[in-house]
Amino acid sequence: MTRFALTLEFDGGPFMGLQRQAHGPSVQQHVEEAVQAITGEAAVMHAAGRTDAGVHALAMRAHVDIEKPFDPFRLMEALNAKLRPQPIAVLACEIVPDDWHARFSCTGRSYIYRITNRRAPLTLERGKAWQVSAPLDVPAMHEAAQHLVGHHDFTTFRSVHCQAASPVKTLDRLDVIRDGDEIDIHAAARSFLHHQVRSMVGCLVLVGRGKWSGDDLKAALEARDRAALGYNAPPDGLYFAGATYS
Amino acid sequence: MTRFALTLEFDGGPFMGLQRQAHGPSVQQHVEEAVQAITGEAAVMHAAGRTDAGVHALAMRAHVDIEKPFDPFRLMEALNAKLRPQPIAVLACEIVPDDWHARFSCTGRSYIYRITNRRAPLTLERGKAWQVSAPLDVPAMHEAAQHLVGHHDFTTFRSVHCQAASPVKTLDRLDVIRDGDEIDIHAAARSFLHHQVRSMVGCLVLVGRGKWSGDDLKAALEARDRAALGYNAPPDGLYFAGATYS
Repeated sequence: MTRFALTLEFDGGPFMGLQRQAHGPSVQQHVEEAVQAITGEAAVMHAAGRTDAGVHALAMRAHVDIEKPFDPFRLMEALNAKLRPQPIAVLACEIVPDDWHARFSCTGRSYIYRITNRRAPLTLERGKAWQVSAPLDVPAMHEAAQHLVGHHDFTTFRSVHCQAASPVKTLDRLDVIRDGDEIDIHAAARSFLHHQVRSMVGCLVLVGRGKWSGDDLKAALEARDRAALGYNAPPDGLYFAGATYS
Repeated sequence: MTRFALTLEFDGGPFMGLQRQAHGPSVQQHVEEAVQAITGEAAVMHAAGRTDAGVHALAMRAHVDIEKPFDPFRLMEALNAKLRPQPIAVLACEIVPDDWHARFSCTGRSYIYRITNRRAPLTLERGKAWQVSAPLDVPAMHEAAQHLVGHHDFTTFRSVHCQAASPVKTLDRLDVIRDGDEIDIHAAARSFLHHQVRSMVGCLVLVGRGKWSGDDLKAALEARDRAALGYNAPPDGLYFAGATYS
C-alpha cells in the first residue's frame, strides 16, 4: 500500500460539498471514482477540511491509499484526465508516509473569503464572490476582526449542525484587506467550526456597513449563543486556501 | 436626446460576441433590449471595440441615445436589473456631450490576455484563461514582444475577416508579466486589427516554449503574410480592459 497526498483545486458551484453526500454530487465521490477507474481498487479519500455546497478550494489537501505501485506524476495526470469535465483538478501528487493523514496530521488551515464591494451584479466572478452593494468600511472591519483573534468559545459563530467536540478554538489570523472593489478576508487557525468563517464574515460586513460597532461584535462573541449571530455570509465567496503540516 | 456613456463588464462565454449577430445572442442585443424595455424607445448601442465570441470585458465603453430624460445612476440600476440573469453588468453610466462617440472618439484601447501556466486543467478559471501545460519562458516572451511594439504592418497577425482599412497600426505596449502560475500579457494601442491580440499571444507562447526565437517572431511580422502566423490563441483568456478618450 502506498499513500498519495493530493492537492486539489475545485469550483464548489456544482457540488453538494467536498464530502460524499447521499443526495447529490460531491468532490469526494468524483475523486474516489477517478482513483477506482485508474487503479481498479476501491478508494477512500480523506481531506484536510469539509467544505459546504458552493464553497471552493484553491489548495485542499487530501490522501488516498493505493495497493498497486504508481508514479505520482502519472497518477496526477491520469486523475486529471478522468476528472474532466468536472471542475476539479489535482495540482500536486506525492507519496507520503503511511502515518501521514490529510485530516489528522493537519496543524493549520486557512481560508480566504472574497467580497466584491460594488453596486453592479457580478459577471466574471458570479458564484465566486459575495457582491455587497453598500460601501464597506474596511479599516473598521479589520479592527473589529481582531476581537475574534485568539482563544475563544465560538458558539455564536457555529452552525447548529457542527459536529466538533468543543466550540473553543484558537483563531490565529483574521485580516480584512481591500484592493479596489475586492475585499479579501484571510482567516487562519488550527481548525474551524462548521460555518465559522462565513458567520464571522457576515458579522464583519455588518460592521463594515456601520450597523454594528466593534463592541457589538465582541458582545456577540461573548454571548456564546447562535441567536446572537448577525448574519451568515453565502458560500460563493469562500475558498479553502491551504493546509499546513508541521 | 441625451447621450449616456456606459462602462460594461461581461463574461463573453455565453455570447457570439459583443456585436449583434443574426445567429446567436450578443452583448449588444441584450443591452439594447434592456434600454428599450426601460425607455420604450428603440435603442442602438455603439461600443469602443468589437469582441469575438468567448472574449470578456472588464471595462468596455459604449453609448446609447435616449429621448426621455433619465438620471444616470437610476438608468444604471434599471439596466443592471433588466440585464439579469445575463452575465453583463453596467459598472458606470454618465451623460456625455452629443458628439462624444464610444468608438470614434476613442483614442486608446487596452487588452489583457491571461494564461494559466500549469499541467492541471482549469477549474475556477475555466473559460476565463488559456491553460498552457508546457513551462513558458516569460523573460524570453517579454523580450520578443518588444519586436512588435511600434508602427508596423500587422498583416501576419490579422484575421482574414478583418474589416480595417489598413493593416498598419501602432502598438504602444506589449508586456508579459508572470505572477506564480498566471501570466498576463498587457497590450495597448490606439486600435487593433481583428484577432491581433490573440495572434500575437499565440506566437509569444511559441517563443515561451522555445519553439520560436525572438528573431522568428520578427521574421513573422516582416513577412506581412497571414500564413507566417504561428498560432492563434483561444478567446477564453482575452479581456477588453479599457478605453481612453483624450
